[in-house]
Amino acid sequence: MRPIITLLTDFGTADGYVAELKGVLFSAAPIVTIVDLSHEIPPQDVESARLAVARYWRRFPSGTVHMVVVDPGVGSARQALAVSSDDRFLVGPDNGVLSPALLASGSRAVSLSIPSMASATFHGRDVFAPAAAHLASGTAIDALGGPCLDPVVRRTPEARRAGDGSVIGEIIAIDRFGNAISNLIAPRGGRIEIGGRTMPIVRAYADGPVGDIIALVGSSGFVEIAQRDGSAARALEITRGTRVTLRSPGA
Amino acid sequence: MRPIITLLTDFGTADGYVAELKGVLFSAAPIVTIVDLSHEIPPQDVESARLAVARYWRRFPSGTVHMVVVDPGVGSARQALAVSSDDRFLVGPDNGVLSPALLASGSRAVSLSIPSMASATFHGRDVFAPAAAHLASGTAIDALGGPCLDPVVRRTPEARRAGDGSVIGEIIAIDRFGNAISNLIAPRGGRIEIGGRTMPIVRAYADGPVGDIIALVGSSGFVEIAQRDGSAARALEITRGTRVTLRSPGA
Amino acid sequence: MRPIITLLTDFGTADGYVAELKGVLFSAAPIVTIVDLSHEIPPQDVESARLAVARYWRRFPSGTVHMVVVDPGVGSARQALAVSSDDRFLVGPDNGVLSPALLASGSRAVSLSIPSMASATFHGRDVFAPAAAHLASGTAIDALGGPCLDPVVRRTPEARRAGDGSVIGEIIAIDRFGNAISNLIAPRGGRIEIGGRTMPIVRAYADGPVGDIIALVGSSGFVEIAQRDGSAARALEITRGTRVTLRSPGA
Repeated sequence: MRPIITLLTDFGTADGYVAELKGVLFSAAPIVTIVDLSHEIPPQDVESARLAVARYWRRFPSGTVHMVVVDPGVGSARQALAVSSDDRFLVGPDNGVLSPALLASGSRAVSLSIPSMASATFHGRDVFAPAAAHLASGTAIDALGGPCLDPVVRRTPEARRAGDGSVIGEIIAIDRFGNAISNLIAPRGGRIEIGGRTMPIVRAYADGPVGDIIALVGSSGFVEIAQRDGSAARALEITRGTRVTLRSPGA
Repeated sequence: MRPIITLLTDFGTADGYVAELKGVLFSAAPIVTIVDLSHEIPPQDVESARLAVARYWRRFPSGTVHMVVVDPGVGSARQALAVSSDDRFLVGPDNGVLSPALLASGSRAVSLSIPSMASATFHGRDVFAPAAAHLASGTAIDALGGPCLDPVVRRTPEARRAGDGSVIGEIIAIDRFGNAISNLIAPRGGRIEIGGRTMPIVRAYADGPVGDIIALVGSSGFVEIAQRDGSAARALEITRGTRVTLRSPGA
Repeated sequence: MRPIITLLTDFGTADGYVAELKGVLFSAAPIVTIVDLSHEIPPQDVESARLAVARYWRRFPSGTVHMVVVDPGVGSARQALAVSSDDRFLVGPDNGVLSPALLASGSRAVSLSIPSMASATFHGRDVFAPAAAHLASGTAIDALGGPCLDPVVRRTPEARRAGDGSVIGEIIAIDRFGNAISNLIAPRGGRIEIGGRTMPIVRAYADGPVGDIIALVGSSGFVEIAQRDGSAARALEITRGTRVTLRSPGA
């Protein structure tokens, strides 16, 4: 099996940056399989990238190398990281995008050496792609730099229990369908309050008449707010950070 | 040659859903070649997906597995299908997106078993990807579920002949260039009427001065309305369903 | 190693054109590796495609075949080209998109034969994909058509030196981040003037407070104008063609 290198960036594709990066990868590691995950992360949106990484990093086979390049601080003093975690590798800037793998037990991070010829504006091409090609080709992670002992870690905000027994969370992401994903873990039979509305937690998007706003447990285990055949985020003017409350059955 | 699995979805890529799905595929079938066809189908636009499938499903080599996940009814009672047709396989929801293959002679459909652990919101990851990996790995389609005898089939609306010998059709798609594609099959020398305008059928987009609205036979054999270096759909306010009339030579 | 065919188009992916084209490639050359570079070039924007090609064509391994299909003149008398240059191949319309490879010493161009069955609207599928598959499979370029002695060549406009020693250039591209890329090559210590503002040339995007407009040398060696955590193009109303002046140190 060929080693896999996955790519997640906020580059878009029209400007040719992704193309350059892929040329570097294929030239350095001709037998890899390169897998596009996304180049449409909103520009410089580290938090969106982190949440996407949490979804996918462990679903790929052992040995996979994940490149994650959403990097507003490129060229600054921020470190460039390679991480080994649960038999996968990740490379990317030290700004929290790699947190899901860093938080797993047994993870290790090294601070990549920056070649003197590296552009100060394009570490994806000049630092992360060469490191990913090395890892996919079997180079030991310790050969790529010294240990990084205090990498930046970002966490999904935790919901908190209120005095009345309800749980208060927030919206952490809006997806392409306008579903608003919260940080709440739901029990059976609970109810959700958001934007002055209350709704039961149903099982599937299709459980309700067209246009209804519903709550359900999404594919990552968190409560999300959806509108049948519409955008809940638009209908309720929900954004990242909007407060959402879970009331347990009987509360 | 490695087996090919193609992907057509309305997921976009920024939310990480496609990434999860690819991780499942590579973990289940490490030697496949995964081919992105599109993740930019407009959200829940079953008709766009069906028309795209009609274009491509037969152009790939024998043995190819096409995943088509545009699935507003995910988690409802709609069936999940695997289809065998003309030596290709397709998996997707039973909402008409697979119609082009279902309508070919000799096609067979099975209703996929839904694992009890499958998320009610993400059958792409939990139902269709595992089925596609099985088919690409050589599992017989009958091992994936029982026969489905009445799959949902959608057809492109047919043009009809009017009393005066003209043929009345409609616009079935608008493409990225603003070309409006109809359901009319054109003879040589005919004329097209749409939105109060009449135009001859020319050979190529470049056959006419910049800004002119023209009609021509597109790459799938249907008449389309185009604007040289512009968007015919915008210029004429054409949408899906807009009426278009073909007058034969001499009529 | 499998031969690589890269794809750069302005097709988008939602309409199924890219899907058809990939089906043709995989059917004609089953063992190739197909690499998406972009399908999001703005419709018919030959200049954007040319600049992207300049970035990537030489970064891929020897033997790579680059398909570049941004082709407003499809079906007209414009020629269809295959180019051999620096041990890579390129196929695309004769409208300047292939200029970066044509301008390299030792390049050769042939004018592809157009099959009589080719659609007049989709040479990507019917002319360029078959040619790319042939080249990737080892067919000699001369077997694909006769020599083309005067291909269309487009060049990045050159900056010019003014009487006062300054250098006057222009913006040639705006990228996804709103960075405005010029045709100026910068010395150390110079200053940039654009839209009534003057700014020093710094090293990295992060060199300056949030919101500041800065100039720096981008990853292709040209001066670009950026805004820390914002869009310089939007902030200064810069477009392609906007004048930008470089004043040398001490001037």
